Amino acid sequence: MLIELRVVIGGIDGYIGWALALHLVSRGHNVIGVDNFVTRRRVEEVGSWSATPILDMYERLKAVEELTGQRIEFVEGDLTDYAVVRGVFNKYKPDAFVHLGEQRSAPYSMIDVHHAVETQVSNITSSLNIVYAMKDVSPHTHLVKMGTMGEYGTPNIDIPEGFFEVEYNGRRDYLPFPRMAGSWYHWSKVHDSGNMMFANKIWGLTITDVMQGVVYGTRTDEIVDERLHTRFDFDEVWGTALNRFCVETVLGLPMTVYGRGGQTRGFISLTDSVQCLRIAIENPPDKSEYRVLNQFDEAYSVIELAKKVYEVAKRKGLEPAIANVPNPRVEAEQHYYNPIHEKLKRLGYKRTRMLEDELSIILDDLVKYRDRLEAKREVIFPRTDWRKPRNPLH
Amino acid sequence: MLIELRVVIGGIDGYIGWALALHLVSRGHNVIGVDNFVTRRRVEEVGSWSATPILDMYERLKAVEELTGQRIEFVEGDLTDYAVVRGVFNKYKPDAFVHLGEQRSAPYSMIDVHHAVETQVSNITSSLNIVYAMKDVSPHTHLVKMGTMGEYGTPNIDIPEGFFEVEYNGRRDYLPFPRMAGSWYHWSKVHDSGNMMFANKIWGLTITDVMQGVVYGTRTDEIVDERLHTRFDFDEVWGTALNRFCVETVLGLPMTVYGRGGQTRGFISLTDSVQCLRIAIENPPDKSEYRVLNQFDEAYSVIELAKKVYEVAKRKGLEPAIANVPNPRVEAEQHYYNPIHEKLKRLGYKRTRMLEDELSIILDDLVKYRDRLEAKREVIFPRTDWRKPRNPLH
Repeated sequence: MLIELRVVIGGIDGYIGWALALHLVSRGHNVIGVDNFVTRRRVEEVGSWSATPILDMYERLKAVEELTGQRIEFVEGDLTDYAVVRGVFNKYKPDAFVHLGEQRSAPYSMIDVHHAVETQVSNITSSLNIVYAMKDVSPHTHLVKMGTMGEYGTPNIDIPEGFFEVEYNGRRDYLPFPRMAGSWYHWSKVHDSGNMMFANKIWGLTITDVMQGVVYGTRTDEIVDERLHTRFDFDEVWGTALNRFCVETVLGLPMTVYGRGGQTRGFISLTDSVQCLRIAIENPPDKSEYRVLNQFDEAYSVIELAKKVYEVAKRKGLEPAIANVPNPRVEAEQHYYNPIHEKLKRLGYKRTRMLEDELSIILDDLVKYRDRLEAKREVIFPRTDWRKPRNPLH
Repeated sequence: MLIELRVVIGGIDGYIGWALALHLVSRGHNVIGVDNFVTRRRVEEVGSWSATPILDMYERLKAVEELTGQRIEFVEGDLTDYAVVRGVFNKYKPDAFVHLGEQRSAPYSMIDVHHAVETQVSNITSSLNIVYAMKDVSPHTHLVKMGTMGEYGTPNIDIPEGFFEVEYNGRRDYLPFPRMAGSWYHWSKVHDSGNMMFANKIWGLTITDVMQGVVYGTRTDEIVDERLHTRFDFDEVWGTALNRFCVETVLGLPMTVYGRGGQTRGFISLTDSVQCLRIAIENPPDKSEYRVLNQFDEAYSVIELAKKVYEVAKRKGLEPAIANVPNPRVEAEQHYYNPIHEKLKRLGYKRTRMLEDELSIILDDLVKYRDRLEAKREVIFPRTDWRKPRNPLH
């Protein structure tokens, strides 16, 4: 007994945005996408491209219609432009708006001052535009805003879902958990979280703020045809650790583990990420609630991940290797890590992907596109250093 | 045995910036100022002006030289332009840079989406530019960055100076105190604090982050001549509570106490604010330390302040009155408030101004400029509402 929802996806052209759109239409929801294709341009800027070839948006949408009979509406526009955002809310008055339209690369934000400023300014501006437009023309909309587990950093205590009961000097309060992010990008998400919490407080907007772990994978149940591929980044700027390890392995390069590899993070497959987002959309919080969800399956250290890739690749006849390279980031390489992640399970989330199975699929897909990886092998090795901006004179 | 320091003041044309410049040169320091006069334009934008007439910068500097024999260098430029900021650090390589160059009005940030975005974007950008320029060309500089006590909000527990020892689920860590700001402006300062903490972490920059209370007063020891006046704002957008109450009283208007007036905040006189900043500059933290100072003298509720103004004004033969007007802000009107403020005292800070004495001076100064207040009486009453953006279609 599913109720069909009207959902706008900001950033539908991105890795998760596209996969989510396919998943939501398969569930019978009415999906409208917004994008200005800036991620394609930013990936080009660093000399890279998606491992999986992706069609342009209008071809993508045609393929969806041909293969599934479903239609997705599309608006080309920039979420940092208030007129665009207000126009979208005014026209569609959606049940949910999923904000996946932010600059999402930590290394990109660390290239130099201009990339730092661009990241924080564009991310904060898009989110402010969205809450103002909701307040102005669509206050019933449920905003699902993509944050990151990286907002919390790696404190030496458990990480709750957004808020915690704290005792200090003999008094108690229930407060937002302190944030200790690790890049200008991650801090932009912290800034967003503060802004979203405040928009909820002053205007009573209904908001789910998703603290997501690192996402991996090339496929979801809906990506059944090459024409439906979502993007898959693998260069040092745009690729996440696990995706990058798989690409390195397919190319016969050693996996570049930063430092000792004890850095532990929460991970989730692309399939289960879009499952979680769909559950959040279908199960909004109470009206005027600000809800924080910690969205990941399991925590792994980077070296554990590399070893998993090693095992799976070995079984496939590839020749994996692991190299410890100097860590370009400033982060603890051994630390406590215990984030709580219960709320999504209580809403019905069940893990459907095992890491090894997903790695096997990723490797098979990448072997198919080995030429596209070969063509870009020079952009895989880390060049963006947290301590040394690349182009200080830019 | 004072060591002469070279100090750049970003925002030297502002209320505190100008008073600080006069105080530092009187102490024998070498002062360079940077400003783009945007506060003058923003105050004009809301139809207001400074109660005290202020000269233009070049006349101000000439007056300083004539009256004190001291020279202040000045650079006209915008701190949101990286080339300007880098140029200043490269040319002066200052011992200290005091960043007072941010948009500082909470109501201004709440006017509409454009003012919200302008506030957060310009504030964050200027601070990012400053830390990148320090990293790039002047890593020895001690940054003194103006934040606000308003970053903390009004939690039901004591407020430490930036960090606190927290116990959660049986484990302990020393973490940044959670922030719960009350306007887009205050949140921009929270965002800055995160960014400054991170710049310190990755690059080892030496930073003092000042969580300042509400500042009041028209005078410092150095403002001995009309030509040396600093600006004094009194309209609903740019005037702080106490300054506004004094102006209302001089005009024979009732003091506009928002709601029940139980909102309690930390306050400090302009004289003691510049004393604190001078102490912070002359006593930098350890190299590569990120130091947070809570900078205020005493906490008062808004209604207590109004009553103080009432008493002092009455003794002067004025006819004060107090009115409780609907609170345009979203804030608790009765709450616990106990921020710790010990570090500046340990560095030698001593309060030199009593509230009643300062109120008497403010009222005398304002009576002199009654005509300038009369001319702008229509911009005193609150129009900016936290719940209802003024110009949603702007």
